[in-house]
Amino acid sequence: MKGDGTLLEVVPVSKAIGMVRGMIPRGIAAPVRVNAVQAVGRVLAADVVAREDLPSFPRSTVDGFAVAAADTFGAGEGTPAILVLDGEVPVGGVPAGALRRGSAVRVATGCALPRGADAVAMVEYCDEPGDGTVTVYCSVSPGENVIQRGEDIAAGATVLRDGHRLRPQDIGALAALGFAEVEVYPLPRVAVVSTGDEVVDPLRVPGPGCVRDINGPAVCASLLRDGAVPEFLGIVPDDRRLLEDCLLRALECDALVVSGGSSAGPRDMIASVIDSRGSPGVVVHGLALRPGKPTILAVLDGKLAVGLPGHPASALVSYETVVKPLLRHVGGETVRDEPFERPPLRARCSRRLSSRPGREEFVRCTLRTRGGETWADPVLGKSGLISTMVKASAFIHIPLDCDGVEQGSIVDVRVFE
Amino acid sequence: MKGDGTLLEVVPVSKAIGMVRGMIPRGIAAPVRVNAVQAVGRVLAADVVAREDLPSFPRSTVDGFAVAAADTFGAGEGTPAILVLDGEVPVGGVPAGALRRGSAVRVATGCALPRGADAVAMVEYCDEPGDGTVTVYCSVSPGENVIQRGEDIAAGATVLRDGHRLRPQDIGALAALGFAEVEVYPLPRVAVVSTGDEVVDPLRVPGPGCVRDINGPAVCASLLRDGAVPEFLGIVPDDRRLLEDCLLRALECDALVVSGGSSAGPRDMIASVIDSRGSPGVVVHGLALRPGKPTILAVLDGKLAVGLPGHPASALVSYETVVKPLLRHVGGETVRDEPFERPPLRARCSRRLSSRPGREEFVRCTLRTRGGETWADPVLGKSGLISTMVKASAFIHIPLDCDGVEQGSIVDVRVFE
Repeated sequence: MKGDGTLLEVVPVSKAIGMVRGMIPRGIAAPVRVNAVQAVGRVLAADVVAREDLPSFPRSTVDGFAVAAADTFGAGEGTPAILVLDGEVPVGGVPAGALRRGSAVRVATGCALPRGADAVAMVEYCDEPGDGTVTVYCSVSPGENVIQRGEDIAAGATVLRDGHRLRPQDIGALAALGFAEVEVYPLPRVAVVSTGDEVVDPLRVPGPGCVRDINGPAVCASLLRDGAVPEFLGIVPDDRRLLEDCLLRALECDALVVSGGSSAGPRDMIASVIDSRGSPGVVVHGLALRPGKPTILAVLDGKLAVGLPGHPASALVSYETVVKPLLRHVGGETVRDEPFERPPLRARCSRRLSSRPGREEFVRCTLRTRGGETWADPVLGKSGLISTMVKASAFIHIPLDCDGVEQGSIVDVRVFE
Repeated sequence: MKGDGTLLEVVPVSKAIGMVRGMIPRGIAAPVRVNAVQAVGRVLAADVVAREDLPSFPRSTVDGFAVAAADTFGAGEGTPAILVLDGEVPVGGVPAGALRRGSAVRVATGCALPRGADAVAMVEYCDEPGDGTVTVYCSVSPGENVIQRGEDIAAGATVLRDGHRLRPQDIGALAALGFAEVEVYPLPRVAVVSTGDEVVDPLRVPGPGCVRDINGPAVCASLLRDGAVPEFLGIVPDDRRLLEDCLLRALECDALVVSGGSSAGPRDMIASVIDSRGSPGVVVHGLALRPGKPTILAVLDGKLAVGLPGHPASALVSYETVVKPLLRHVGGETVRDEPFERPPLRARCSRRLSSRPGREEFVRCTLRTRGGETWADPVLGKSGLISTMVKASAFIHIPLDCDGVEQGSIVDVRVFE
């Protein structure tokens, strides 16, 4: 009869991620080939190896004159090198012939260098008196203002790895290397279920004692944001048989997320229903996390099944810290056993916060800049209030072994995406 | 003849954003109505005002017993309050009648409280001896373990504002309030053009002296990531007439981004071509930014037109710092005149970096944790190398007035999205 889940044996968040991740294959569905530009945000399902040198010829990085560097050694403001101007390289074309010692060829940014040239003197340091010569007022080193053949990417190099989520610059590199398509993991299809006798569809006017579903829409939106495909299976009452039937349908997806009924009270039957649907069943019931403690993490024959708390702020904290990294793994991404991929921000906390060692706390907050410093202002309010999440723009992260935060002290902050 | 753009009169990034933003309407296209869950990541085109109280009745936040708080005053471990058990409230139903003083009604988490009850005693602090009474071993305050009617959101409150980009929790709040659809700005359609005689389609094998287009695919991917719709118009040679024709087509979109030919050299005709296509024309030509200095920002009859540098790393730095906030404004979002919406990370720089005051520098880097601290390791290499952007995961941001960074000193870091 412990409705707040005090009976739960809690597991630290990172440990829970590691326990569950080890039981689920990375990239649950068979890879697909997609257009490279459209692949931004998708996860590579194979290493990308360069088939050729990039660039395939030595290129000038500036407008200027291709030279043999040795012809400019010792040149300076008062002692320029005088070279014979021997035409120019057309942009997107090839040099007419090799560079002769003592001469210079005009090049624009991006031009190929003629054979025999090993550097480019920038136009800013040169003069053309109009008599068929070029005056170079500086000494250039071999390789100066030149990108060598293969300097960007050498043929045979592994440019991007299986499990990497593609960013815009990666798409640029794929284009440069001539990859029109790439092999990626499919977006994971995730079944979403809301539970509770009192929960009604947001389109309905709730009857007395009833409320509209918040977690279903919020979890579906989180999945959309994170590159997964939500399949909302509806709102199921607190009825064991109906829940079992629903979970059977949910297991047709790549993963499932149920919200509500995840604690250890008399109405909380999600853990036992999930546990009965596959092997090994429930792995973690209870996280050392606040809000978000009554969270269920299960593996059902290789598929991730999650039970989120019913309180909306609890459900969203649990989603951000454990569900998101696990779903990234399901989607093929190489992840660590940590809630967040990037380091935290640091800010000063504007009020004292108490905490209990033995659990991680995520305190909703807003951020502002004062005197060149970032300050975090806690948003107070119960975890059942969705408005506290709407007002906040970040979480203050109080670590597992910390017994509170003094006013004005530095805290780790996680900004909402 | 200054190919690197030394002739450009540079403008600081924030000032440039402000100058251009002031000339473009926020939200260039007419709002559309979309399904609320699908609206995550979209920008609201109207304030959202609550039409009703949330919740519409006082709710218990725990499993326990609804009581009149005054009946428990003074109760404790050794001096419990003994109340008459008067049934229970069904989940999703209504209390049978008002609570009589001296009695208690069983409630589950989320249940409506009967009239006359103003608090809930948690089941953990109660006992049921089985004789029709409830023993309460604690004193509860009025309002304890209760969410009052309208406590989450009060009828008439402005919950979300025009110009706000919707997050998962906002979708939860919309659902709770019964909004099935919301009014959002359309995703901005952005024309993308690559220029240069030497640039060929990534699907082609480049001829001698030619290279595949990097910026077109990378900019299109950036736009897709950022919630815009790229329309790639192709690769245009360095030919004034062809560029003018292409820009005319590009202006059918909500904004346009051209890359290459943005400096002040003899081949650099983008600025004058853009300038001829509308009023007021080029607003900024040259940013106090490295890499990314030869950037053109123009407004053509209310539309944003950008000329990005040809070097890929320069183009991407320019995109991240000025194009992205301006496109957010075009897409209807309320933005500040700053490159980034969130505060920076802080890290220790693992090597000395020199810089020149008078320009902001973004140094590509990787991040690692050592001794509980985040360290930034600069990725060295020319801004023409796309591989430097692929290897990096973040930028070290050296501010405008800084002349360098000592090894081991703390720097601002911007992690790639």
